[in-house]
Amino acid sequence: MSVGSCTWAIPGGRIPLRSTGPEPESTSHDLLCFLNIGNDDASVSIWIYYGDRDPVGPYRITVMAERVRHVRLNDLIDPEAIPLDTDYGVLIRSNVPIIVQFWRQDTSRGKTVATTMAVPLD
Amino acid sequence: MSVGSCTWAIPGGRIPLRSTGPEPESTSHDLLCFLNIGNDDASVSIWIYYGDRDPVGPYRITVMAERVRHVRLNDLIDPEAIPLDTDYGVLIRSNVPIIVQFWRQDTSRGKTVATTMAVPLD
Amino acid sequence: MSVGSCTWAIPGGRIPLRSTGPEPESTSHDLLCFLNIGNDDASVSIWIYYGDRDPVGPYRITVMAERVRHVRLNDLIDPEAIPLDTDYGVLIRSNVPIIVQFWRQDTSRGKTVATTMAVPLD
Amino acid sequence: MSVGSCTWAIPGGRIPLRSTGPEPESTSHDLLCFLNIGNDDASVSIWIYYGDRDPVGPYRITVMAERVRHVRLNDLIDPEAIPLDTDYGVLIRSNVPIIVQFWRQDTSRGKTVATTMAVPLD
Repeated sequence: MSVGSCTWAIPGGRIPLRSTGPEPESTSHDLLCFLNIGNDDASVSIWIYYGDRDPVGPYRITVMAERVRHVRLNDLIDPEAIPLDTDYGVLIRSNVPIIVQFWRQDTSRGKTVATTMAVPLD
Repeated sequence: MSVGSCTWAIPGGRIPLRSTGPEPESTSHDLLCFLNIGNDDASVSIWIYYGDRDPVGPYRITVMAERVRHVRLNDLIDPEAIPLDTDYGVLIRSNVPIIVQFWRQDTSRGKTVATTMAVPLD
Repeated sequence: MSVGSCTWAIPGGRIPLRSTGPEPESTSHDLLCFLNIGNDDASVSIWIYYGDRDPVGPYRITVMAERVRHVRLNDLIDPEAIPLDTDYGVLIRSNVPIIVQFWRQDTSRGKTVATTMAVPLD
Repeated sequence: MSVGSCTWAIPGGRIPLRSTGPEPESTSHDLLCFLNIGNDDASVSIWIYYGDRDPVGPYRITVMAERVRHVRLNDLIDPEAIPLDTDYGVLIRSNVPIIVQFWRQDTSRGKTVATTMAVPLD
């Protein structure tokens, strides 16, 4: 059995501009969900790809062994925040295998959610 | 032809806190859908991974040969219920190959649904 | 390059009971989308798996070479219609490789849609 | 590590006929999201498959090295526009590996979104 992959990609990012309802629960967002079922903590580097400029990163986070971690793309601020309403893609690299899922919550009009697994690249 | 995989993972679980509309049809929930197209019953163990504590499980269910079984995560209570509005991931192990899909129904504001296949790990 | 797989599975079927809005456009439904990018017509057999009885099928359809075909599960009637509001899974076998996507449209309260690719088994 | 695949397919296209809300933000659409994490620009050819006539294409676009590009299917006009409310599938070929995700935004009644990765064929 494998415990996932070390590299994952998501082409279809775009944090919705508008939100309705109480924050932060109802704030429109894109979300990365990391699952580390292994015995070693995962050091994860996130790179954001844009349409008109060089990739930005790494955004660094740790996913502890035998833990899940959900991170809103809206909350990534170092080295810089991701602008709203802007097309982007995501490349994720980890030093140990993990599993990655993507969610969007859009509350610009009512509430709609969508999800897909990221694409494993190794 | 294979008949699926024995290990599957889902990083992006979170049972919505609020629901609107008549129960249980309209209750917000996360859902696991198991398909066993083989000739042997599947003994399935489910482990729930959290952000801040050790995994909880196994939750044990059987998926009979040539049957489908849909299980709301909300309904898993032994060894303990999954708290609402809490990030979690899922690891599924079966003694025979199966296929696993994930759904969320969120009725906190109107009704929205999302789905993805789980990630096969063998 | 491959042109897809001959066997696909979908564990998470359930045609919503209720619909709002004009038929057939707004009728709640589960949908199978077949793409045949090859040079030979595909003879497709669909089997429906249930929770409490033996699989039902085959439902037979043809997907012509270099054509797409979208089929509402609601519209499969031979050998028998799929009951609404009932958990089911789908197994699809084709004599030539194809690609299969699943959609649900639920208009029981407003309109919500979800999609995933089916799981290839060969 | 790979950087994706050169061929991708999506069986379940259908641009919704109706839209509500301000254009172009709220216009109902199907969307292709391309991510090129490699060092070479990608020359991408898109072919649209229909239910009752031969495939149409190629629609040609470039996805620059280390860039993301999101393209609404509604905006593809050369060699011809994709008719609304019509079943179609998509075949994507690139001269270098890329990653492809599909989105639908349907604003015919409120707003609902859905997404899935395309199916890699090499």
